[in-house]
Amino acid sequence: MELWLPLDSYELQHRYKYLALYHALRDAIHAGTLEAGARLPSTRVLATQYDMSRGSVAQVYDMLMADGYVHAYTGKGTYVTESLSSQHHVQTEAVLPLSPWAERLLSLRAEQERSREEVQPAHESVINFRMQRLLTEHFPAAEWKSALAAVHRSGWREPEGAAGDPELREAIAAHLRWTRGIQAEASQIVLFSGSIQGITLLCQLLITEGNPVVQESPGYQGIVHAVRSCGGQVIPAEVDEGGIIPQDWKAQTLFVTPTRQFPTGAVLGLERRRALLSWASKQNAVIVEDDYDSEFRWGGRPIEPLKVLDREQRVIYIGSFSQTMPASFRLGYAVLPRSLVQPLLAAKALYEPVSPALLEQRALARFMTRGGYMRHLRRLTRLYGERHDFFVEEMRRCLPQAFTMQPGDSGLTIYAVWNGDQASYERFTQHVHEQGVLFRDVEQYRLMPGHAAICFGFAHLEQAVIREGIQRMRAAWEKCTFSFR
Amino acid sequence: MELWLPLDSYELQHRYKYLALYHALRDAIHAGTLEAGARLPSTRVLATQYDMSRGSVAQVYDMLMADGYVHAYTGKGTYVTESLSSQHHVQTEAVLPLSPWAERLLSLRAEQERSREEVQPAHESVINFRMQRLLTEHFPAAEWKSALAAVHRSGWREPEGAAGDPELREAIAAHLRWTRGIQAEASQIVLFSGSIQGITLLCQLLITEGNPVVQESPGYQGIVHAVRSCGGQVIPAEVDEGGIIPQDWKAQTLFVTPTRQFPTGAVLGLERRRALLSWASKQNAVIVEDDYDSEFRWGGRPIEPLKVLDREQRVIYIGSFSQTMPASFRLGYAVLPRSLVQPLLAAKALYEPVSPALLEQRALARFMTRGGYMRHLRRLTRLYGERHDFFVEEMRRCLPQAFTMQPGDSGLTIYAVWNGDQASYERFTQHVHEQGVLFRDVEQYRLMPGHAAICFGFAHLEQAVIREGIQRMRAAWEKCTFSFR
Repeated sequence: MELWLPLDSYELQHRYKYLALYHALRDAIHAGTLEAGARLPSTRVLATQYDMSRGSVAQVYDMLMADGYVHAYTGKGTYVTESLSSQHHVQTEAVLPLSPWAERLLSLRAEQERSREEVQPAHESVINFRMQRLLTEHFPAAEWKSALAAVHRSGWREPEGAAGDPELREAIAAHLRWTRGIQAEASQIVLFSGSIQGITLLCQLLITEGNPVVQESPGYQGIVHAVRSCGGQVIPAEVDEGGIIPQDWKAQTLFVTPTRQFPTGAVLGLERRRALLSWASKQNAVIVEDDYDSEFRWGGRPIEPLKVLDREQRVIYIGSFSQTMPASFRLGYAVLPRSLVQPLLAAKALYEPVSPALLEQRALARFMTRGGYMRHLRRLTRLYGERHDFFVEEMRRCLPQAFTMQPGDSGLTIYAVWNGDQASYERFTQHVHEQGVLFRDVEQYRLMPGHAAICFGFAHLEQAVIREGIQRMRAAWEKCTFSFR
Repeated sequence: MELWLPLDSYELQHRYKYLALYHALRDAIHAGTLEAGARLPSTRVLATQYDMSRGSVAQVYDMLMADGYVHAYTGKGTYVTESLSSQHHVQTEAVLPLSPWAERLLSLRAEQERSREEVQPAHESVINFRMQRLLTEHFPAAEWKSALAAVHRSGWREPEGAAGDPELREAIAAHLRWTRGIQAEASQIVLFSGSIQGITLLCQLLITEGNPVVQESPGYQGIVHAVRSCGGQVIPAEVDEGGIIPQDWKAQTLFVTPTRQFPTGAVLGLERRRALLSWASKQNAVIVEDDYDSEFRWGGRPIEPLKVLDREQRVIYIGSFSQTMPASFRLGYAVLPRSLVQPLLAAKALYEPVSPALLEQRALARFMTRGGYMRHLRRLTRLYGERHDFFVEEMRRCLPQAFTMQPGDSGLTIYAVWNGDQASYERFTQHVHEQGVLFRDVEQYRLMPGHAAICFGFAHLEQAVIREGIQRMRAAWEKCTFSFR
């Protein structure tokens, strides 16, 4: 079915194409152009016809479905609701006015959905090399339970302000002094329900709509999303084996992962660190250092955070417990320049004048101050270190020609650059997919084109599974090696 | 010491007066106009001199203190730091660029600080009629602990998305059907770390900078703050004994407390409810219904939420557990029109892609589905109802002429209008204060002038304390009754 919609005239009225399509389809259903029971074109067809992404079209269908205009039958497509004319509530349901912020958010969301369109392989035993959160079997549940119980026994306490439990902030300050060399006072530390809450609030504080913001490419998409939600213009910064390449960006905000670049794992050398700091000084800029993955080291000297070199109080250090605590435990934090403590607390207090999840915060403080957290870290580091070495050795043994791995002595991901061309990479991934092996394509982290590469997570997998996964990749690679010759 | 600052020229450069003052003082310290060790004028003096609020001046002093430029000695005043010239880090510490949103937030904060300037009485036994959160002694701690333990035993679970634990959302949907007559599906419910997180996110979604937003006067300051942080212009709506007075506001967003107006306790009649809904329909507006205090009824028929009458899906219903759960437990929720579910989830996911505090959410779900929550509510209702009646009787007996109490058969506050003039009210409050009695002056909730009134909280006080407090008020009243004659 070819469906014609007067999309151009709708686009004049609505800021975003997906909103234009939404209203056009809605009106077509009201007008009877699309009759009750009629099948809508596939998202692919409509996307091609109106030059949109499939994700955007799919979002429009979701919106129509939420409104009750259409229904989807898995594998059969999307149909205009049969009983539409009798459904009074559908016809009178209001289309509510949204702010420009909301529209920006929704258009970002459509973009995000598109990047998430990942098909699951039909293979019966899937091996997933995408990084996972901590497996519960690796967490000392009994010790944690007793920390929770002790906190519970000690009674309810008056809730704290927006900054979070003071004992946990003290414990984090001590942990940072001990493990990262950061001299921060608890008063400079603000707790969040995850590092992304902190990053988003900092974006709101720092970014004026339309202003440029520097972010690494490849890099963490969450930051890009947070920046764009504030109307910031992302300037991609190039990354090589030595991490971000400093430049004379015309910007006042930089997001960077100096300790272990995400996702390449590159370590930023001292000279580049200094260059970033003098750039910031010259531009009167703020640097947000995301130390997302510094707890695990397999050898070598610990890498000094950028924050340690920060003489002018321009660096915001972001940390989290997402790699070391179970998935449903959410906690991140920021170490702030003194001048930003009050603004950030005011921002957080807008949403959370009283810090939530205090029970868990207090339990973590207890877990940390009594040494349980460090013991847990050491156990994990031993286990993950063995898996890291095993993964690297197996890859070198089985797939020596396929990938060049970024050397690294820390962190829970391994960055492997494909040695062939794009076409051979696509054949490889297709074969691998058929073998039931999943991994993160670095493509989705890029803001500008780059060579095909994969970001492997290994820490959640037992050695036998790692071996099996690599052997399947080997088999897939053999099917497409001819392109290397 | 009279300090002259060229504030006018600074005001040309900086958007807000407090920022102008901050930079003027900073430069004066750098220039040596204010020497090391010099005492700064009191906030009162500077506020008068430059026509600012004392709260704003105090905030500037806080900022200078955070930067290390000044030090405060309690009761002695604020002094320029002695060792300033030798403190290298102070002089090179960056003044970081902030977004207009941040500046708006900080200027709001200065305003808020001002309204919070409350002196504590020197009296040795203070009786506090300000509403408090639930006392821990009234919470079934053992039952709650066993719910927490059961959740903990059942193991870690895969975290949920931004909407929060599905079982708790089901439990809340069931509770709302049962106690409030709201027919909502769990998919329309989003959980927050408190109702204010939901309100702030909704403001971001609904309010375009500069747009008018209607809010009751008197009303909850948190809403005013959230609206202004988004750049919304608050239009105060008049409130009488029948609640908000509907008008033909030129706006597309209305915040209202129809079930029990905050803080007057007025119940909005059906006619006015209908008027609000047809206003919304005409304006294509959204109504945010804050049902902050509906769990406790001392008699009479339960009042139907506005949401129940909402045929066009224009009403957002906000509820919370802040009156029924201990202070450090934070949970609020919104029941959304279907068209707002996706936008609000996208907004929340920006900060919390995974819902935090799942342990407590799951424990509450268990507590609710097993009947513990309703038993707890019934116990509290009995206790609070007795205290309500006792407070009202004692007030009528001891202070029959001083106040006119707003009749009410639900809720944890009593609104009492002062029968005298403003001058006699001020004498009364001064005497009461000397007697060690605290309460919330309704003045701080007002957006436009109104008659003197007090919002009394009684639920946290035992009868003997209520009696003692009212007797002290009686004594204070006797000292100033002559003004009534």
